[in-house]
Amino acid sequence: MSAVVNCAAYAAGRRVADVALEAIGDALKQPDRFVWIGLHEPDEEMLKLVQRDFGLHDLAIEDAHRAHQRPKLERYEDDLFVVLRTAQMNPAPNRIEFGETLVFVGSRYLVSVRHGPSLSYAEVRKRCEATPRLLSQGPGFVLYALMDFVVDQYFPLVAALQEQLDTLEERIFGEAFSRETTARIYELKRDLLDVKRAVSPLVDVCNRLIRFDIELIPDDTRPYFRDVYDHVVRINELVDNLRELLTSALEAQLSLLSAEQIEAMHQQNEVMHQQSEAMKQLAAWAAIIAVPTMIAGVYGMNFRWMPELEWQYGYPAVMAAMIGACGFLYYSFKRSGWL
Amino acid sequence: MSAVVNCAAYAAGRRVADVALEAIGDALKQPDRFVWIGLHEPDEEMLKLVQRDFGLHDLAIEDAHRAHQRPKLERYEDDLFVVLRTAQMNPAPNRIEFGETLVFVGSRYLVSVRHGPSLSYAEVRKRCEATPRLLSQGPGFVLYALMDFVVDQYFPLVAALQEQLDTLEERIFGEAFSRETTARIYELKRDLLDVKRAVSPLVDVCNRLIRFDIELIPDDTRPYFRDVYDHVVRINELVDNLRELLTSALEAQLSLLSAEQIEAMHQQNEVMHQQSEAMKQLAAWAAIIAVPTMIAGVYGMNFRWMPELEWQYGYPAVMAAMIGACGFLYYSFKRSGWL
Amino acid sequence: MSAVVNCAAYAAGRRVADVALEAIGDALKQPDRFVWIGLHEPDEEMLKLVQRDFGLHDLAIEDAHRAHQRPKLERYEDDLFVVLRTAQMNPAPNRIEFGETLVFVGSRYLVSVRHGPSLSYAEVRKRCEATPRLLSQGPGFVLYALMDFVVDQYFPLVAALQEQLDTLEERIFGEAFSRETTARIYELKRDLLDVKRAVSPLVDVCNRLIRFDIELIPDDTRPYFRDVYDHVVRINELVDNLRELLTSALEAQLSLLSAEQIEAMHQQNEVMHQQSEAMKQLAAWAAIIAVPTMIAGVYGMNFRWMPELEWQYGYPAVMAAMIGACGFLYYSFKRSGWL
Amino acid sequence: MSAVVNCAAYAAGRRVADVALEAIGDALKQPDRFVWIGLHEPDEEMLKLVQRDFGLHDLAIEDAHRAHQRPKLERYEDDLFVVLRTAQMNPAPNRIEFGETLVFVGSRYLVSVRHGPSLSYAEVRKRCEATPRLLSQGPGFVLYALMDFVVDQYFPLVAALQEQLDTLEERIFGEAFSRETTARIYELKRDLLDVKRAVSPLVDVCNRLIRFDIELIPDDTRPYFRDVYDHVVRINELVDNLRELLTSALEAQLSLLSAEQIEAMHQQNEVMHQQSEAMKQLAAWAAIIAVPTMIAGVYGMNFRWMPELEWQYGYPAVMAAMIGACGFLYYSFKRSGWL
Amino acid sequence: MSAVVNCAAYAAGRRVADVALEAIGDALKQPDRFVWIGLHEPDEEMLKLVQRDFGLHDLAIEDAHRAHQRPKLERYEDDLFVVLRTAQMNPAPNRIEFGETLVFVGSRYLVSVRHGPSLSYAEVRKRCEATPRLLSQGPGFVLYALMDFVVDQYFPLVAALQEQLDTLEERIFGEAFSRETTARIYELKRDLLDVKRAVSPLVDVCNRLIRFDIELIPDDTRPYFRDVYDHVVRINELVDNLRELLTSALEAQLSLLSAEQIEAMHQQNEVMHQQSEAMKQLAAWAAIIAVPTMIAGVYGMNFRWMPELEWQYGYPAVMAAMIGACGFLYYSFKRSGWL
Repeated sequence: MSAVVNCAAYAAGRRVADVALEAIGDALKQPDRFVWIGLHEPDEEMLKLVQRDFGLHDLAIEDAHRAHQRPKLERYEDDLFVVLRTAQMNPAPNRIEFGETLVFVGSRYLVSVRHGPSLSYAEVRKRCEATPRLLSQGPGFVLYALMDFVVDQYFPLVAALQEQLDTLEERIFGEAFSRETTARIYELKRDLLDVKRAVSPLVDVCNRLIRFDIELIPDDTRPYFRDVYDHVVRINELVDNLRELLTSALEAQLSLLSAEQIEAMHQQNEVMHQQSEAMKQLAAWAAIIAVPTMIAGVYGMNFRWMPELEWQYGYPAVMAAMIGACGFLYYSFKRSGWL
Repeated sequence: MSAVVNCAAYAAGRRVADVALEAIGDALKQPDRFVWIGLHEPDEEMLKLVQRDFGLHDLAIEDAHRAHQRPKLERYEDDLFVVLRTAQMNPAPNRIEFGETLVFVGSRYLVSVRHGPSLSYAEVRKRCEATPRLLSQGPGFVLYALMDFVVDQYFPLVAALQEQLDTLEERIFGEAFSRETTARIYELKRDLLDVKRAVSPLVDVCNRLIRFDIELIPDDTRPYFRDVYDHVVRINELVDNLRELLTSALEAQLSLLSAEQIEAMHQQNEVMHQQSEAMKQLAAWAAIIAVPTMIAGVYGMNFRWMPELEWQYGYPAVMAAMIGACGFLYYSFKRSGWL
Repeated sequence: MSAVVNCAAYAAGRRVADVALEAIGDALKQPDRFVWIGLHEPDEEMLKLVQRDFGLHDLAIEDAHRAHQRPKLERYEDDLFVVLRTAQMNPAPNRIEFGETLVFVGSRYLVSVRHGPSLSYAEVRKRCEATPRLLSQGPGFVLYALMDFVVDQYFPLVAALQEQLDTLEERIFGEAFSRETTARIYELKRDLLDVKRAVSPLVDVCNRLIRFDIELIPDDTRPYFRDVYDHVVRINELVDNLRELLTSALEAQLSLLSAEQIEAMHQQNEVMHQQSEAMKQLAAWAAIIAVPTMIAGVYGMNFRWMPELEWQYGYPAVMAAMIGACGFLYYSFKRSGWL
Repeated sequence: MSAVVNCAAYAAGRRVADVALEAIGDALKQPDRFVWIGLHEPDEEMLKLVQRDFGLHDLAIEDAHRAHQRPKLERYEDDLFVVLRTAQMNPAPNRIEFGETLVFVGSRYLVSVRHGPSLSYAEVRKRCEATPRLLSQGPGFVLYALMDFVVDQYFPLVAALQEQLDTLEERIFGEAFSRETTARIYELKRDLLDVKRAVSPLVDVCNRLIRFDIELIPDDTRPYFRDVYDHVVRINELVDNLRELLTSALEAQLSLLSAEQIEAMHQQNEVMHQQSEAMKQLAAWAAIIAVPTMIAGVYGMNFRWMPELEWQYGYPAVMAAMIGACGFLYYSFKRSGWL
Repeated sequence: MSAVVNCAAYAAGRRVADVALEAIGDALKQPDRFVWIGLHEPDEEMLKLVQRDFGLHDLAIEDAHRAHQRPKLERYEDDLFVVLRTAQMNPAPNRIEFGETLVFVGSRYLVSVRHGPSLSYAEVRKRCEATPRLLSQGPGFVLYALMDFVVDQYFPLVAALQEQLDTLEERIFGEAFSRETTARIYELKRDLLDVKRAVSPLVDVCNRLIRFDIELIPDDTRPYFRDVYDHVVRINELVDNLRELLTSALEAQLSLLSAEQIEAMHQQNEVMHQQSEAMKQLAAWAAIIAVPTMIAGVYGMNFRWMPELEWQYGYPAVMAAMIGACGFLYYSFKRSGWL
């Protein structure tokens, strides 16, 4: 029965005895005592045993088996059944891992059942035992201590997500676009929604613990639940804040991408313009060279009767004409900006 | 009268007799009995018969005819009328099919009327008969069992939609764009809205069954409806989650498309640049070849008086000039980067 | 006084007499009777007459004059004043036309005032008179019948809008973009908002008719108003659904347009590439032809002393050189992919 | 003391005397009288005087000095303090101008303080004095008359904004894009938000005037405030409607712009294609002309030993070869579509 | 103990003595006195001292240590614990700096604890001491004065953010796009969300101070908290307004960027068209020059038998043919628009 992490009886805020699961009945014979049991992924048999001992409701036990519950508070007559989602950042792949803790609370017992990846509650027990004055308020205070512990784990988580957003912001506003940034934005959105779903139902849970007339929660303990309530509300707010910023970041990215497109277009226009200029120069020089070539061709013809050929100054005259034509073309192209 | 799927009388949680629809009056003469009737697409005549037997309200019977009702809970004095939408994934074309179940509940009867594609409630009956302790709570518990059965069918459905989103995510972030992906995103949105419309009114229905003072629902049965309530809220949350992720996926797709445009533009710029380079080379080589051609043309002219032609070293000098010109041009183009 | 469509006295659910507007006072002298008057765009004088007869509130009469009221329920002591918006699809230009109906209800009268395009309520009267059992519940039931009639006209309307969306979806996902599709999406959005504004206030109106302690509405009649309430909620839901789908359709269209842009860019790249290839070929062939032309030019020069010309095999050697140069160029261009 | 616009005492719904601000004490000595004072941007001294006369709260007086209040209703014991925002369209630059009116109401007085651009309330006074029956209900009715007057000014305003949207729609769907259209959309959004902020708090104000047990508002007067409430709700709805349409218009504009981009790209492709065709023709003709030029060059060489030159039919043979080559090229280019 | 900014006892609205922190016990022995202590970032020891003196709750003291609390109101029996966030614009980098103030209020004491950057409350104390009539209402009024002071600091802050939006609007609608504008929009969004988170919880805090039955807040003081409530609501509204405008501004920017893209495309088309025209001209002139060059080449061939060469008018005829060909080409190109 290794699933029993801890099982002890408390009286007046102090641990009075470690109890075997089978001996709970005896332990509770003495009044003013309560039993606090910590289980970790118990099998069905053990849950049945616990159910019998404390008269837990069938539906609550059924929920204790099924994974992926929504956080909630159920009241079966005077007993409470609380479902919590724990969360921690697994640093290796930087992914959030969610676990589940179910808490059965009666006037003289508290049973916590831990599922999936989550921290042990040994520390909570240690802290409670360190403040007998508060622990003497009974199982209601232990419930607070557990919830406070679970909720406080969300703060570093949200801080990590906030950091991820900061990194994304830098990438969006600083660097060029990468497919990976967009994929990361999407993943972050997904993580935020997961956290939201794990935390937001707790607002209602805490509210009911504070407001409704539940005997299990003594008046002295209520301010403590109000504290948990405040934390839950703050985490909720932070997550909503991050979601809205993420949406804005995406919009900003779209704007920047649009602007980058315009830049690319202007570059194209630049290239096109240069191409156009080069083409004009090409045309101009081609013309300047083609004209004397043509004239020379004409006077290279072998006609018997070509009077210019006989003239003494035919050659210099033609040369002058050629140079003149080239000069005129050069000047014209220069003036019209082609050269 | 093949529309009667099952009709039996129960006492103290046990099935005591199968009853013909016409003999219900007799069956109810004995106190502490209740009748549970399952109908499947009954004709008007049969509904009239049932209405007479249990004194059902006209409006409820009218609703039982009309398809496409919204899930709701009506209270006619002490009797309840519940409309539920059933859903199942038709695997062939991967489309959701919605059906409708109407439940009339009184202190001594429960009539379920099934319309459209939906699973039979035979399994619900079997499960109920397997737990006489719970079934002895009367028709209120049967109503719970039916609702639980209907609601639980939405979990695999939502899981299937979640899987569709996963596939879409892979396509969006992994592959190139296809019209079909966008069409699938739209269809998924549509399916989610359909599921939402079928489930969300149940939040209110369950709430009223839990909170309001309805005699039909004994105090022992209420926690069960709270369980259904939790499931409905969870499905609602999952659907909302998927909708928000879908919206983010669409936005991410737009970003990626924008980025792809930029990439395409940079490719264009690349092509243009290469084109421009090729054009410059063309121009350079054309010039290098055109110049000696022109010079050769000049000395091919047939003028009588061209003194250079007579010079002994005219030919080598011109050749040297040609090669020199070509070399100079080559060097110039090389230096200015055209070659 | 053609504005009086119908005016009759009812007792025990049956029409006992047709009454002239001026003789209403007499008609009401007998107890257990109520008068049901249907007016169509009455003038001020007639409204004053009716006001005097039944002691209607000034503000209600004022509203009966002004068009474009918001649907609402007013209670003046024990009397009710209800404003409804009627709607019907004008098939010719496929536009929705809204009308207005105002209903004054007291314990012994009901006056309906119809404005703008709307169906006559003759059918409602016929249906009511066909069920004396229900009509005997008094003016409260007539109010229900009128509201039910008005609300039921919205179902085909919403179905028509749904059909328009289906058409738009086909266009968006099937065909190429057209300005007209975008304009139609916008118009559909506008129509949906108009319907929403006409229907959504009725949720509150029905709610108050069901819940508040209004003597005019007997307990037997309340379930009927709950039925209207359900219909109104359903229409509201359908309209919201359509609005959300329309938004998604617009987003999908943007995605598809973005993708189409990318396609157009890839086409451009294709064209540019081909252009580039053509230019290279052009350059290559120009070079291949220019080289022998240049060589031929050289040996066409008329220098006296050009030893090559005297050589016996000068000509074949030069021809071989030309062919060799061309061959070499062809081979080079081929190898570098220009040809 | 020109800030006093009007100051009169009323009894039984009739104006009985014009009173000087200093003589109010005397005027109120007679029971069943109330005083209605209209001030326009009074200085501090006058406000102090009024405060002393009617025992107004410090905070209310402080608010009367500060501009840019939010519409609200304050209750100081039995007295009311109402802040309203007035609005009117300044036609010259087509901009909305907001003013502020503060109303102090007690059982025997009503003081209105007007700030900024707004219509005079002389007309309200005239209308009230025209209906002594209603005015006899006391300051509560005057408060209604003032609020009704202020609220009714928003209808033409909203109609003007609606008209602006219509103009924008025409521009968006009809014409080409202009920067100015986008700027106008943004300004319209801004105006709508301003109107919203001025009107929406009145929903709550009216609600409290109707529902809460305020002695100042006699039961007879409440329906009138319900009327104001309806108007405020309607203006709110119209503004929300316009905002949603504006958002849709912006989205439609983005779609149309995207489509216009595609069109521009197709035009580019067209131009590029034409360019490509022209280049091919150029290349083809260059080749056709270059080949005979090259051949002619060859036979223009002056080699002594060129047997072809001696042949009798050398010339026609070469000419035939030239024409043949040109013809072959022409035919080839034609076939491959370059010509 | 420099953390004690001020510590004084008050009676009947007047400061009666400066008290050392250690002597508070004595100071409170006299009835009708209350102590107002101002601390600035006290160490743990001092907080313990204060806690002992006034019996403050552990949780409140714990909160006083931790930074980054959410504004809230806690009630421990008859005492109040209020957390406020202060804000001021640091002009140098134009960034908002948030501080925190915690207030412990009992019937006979008020302790304010200031953390982080914030203005001193010396001014509040001065103002309170200037109005003994109000200060005589006790610590409740001091709480108001503090909250009013804190809340009023948000108005210039929001005005500064409004100004930033105005600047952004000008940039968006006036100038060309810059990456920096988008980054500024995002930062402004972030600042607005920070302000929102600091202010919006105060709506609920003020509401509870006004409505709930808290003895500490005398009836006379409640209107003052209503005033704070109004301010908080207004700041909230202004922030929401700015957020919505910012979203619209971003959308407008996207539209304008899209339009700019179209403009860039049209420029490209323009450039391409010019390029195309230049290419046609080039082709035309090349053809016009190439044709006579080719003809000249032909008649430059050295065939023995070329009858045209012998003809007397061969030369003029060929020249005429050349000029004719050129003229024909020129005319053709002109007609077809290439020249």
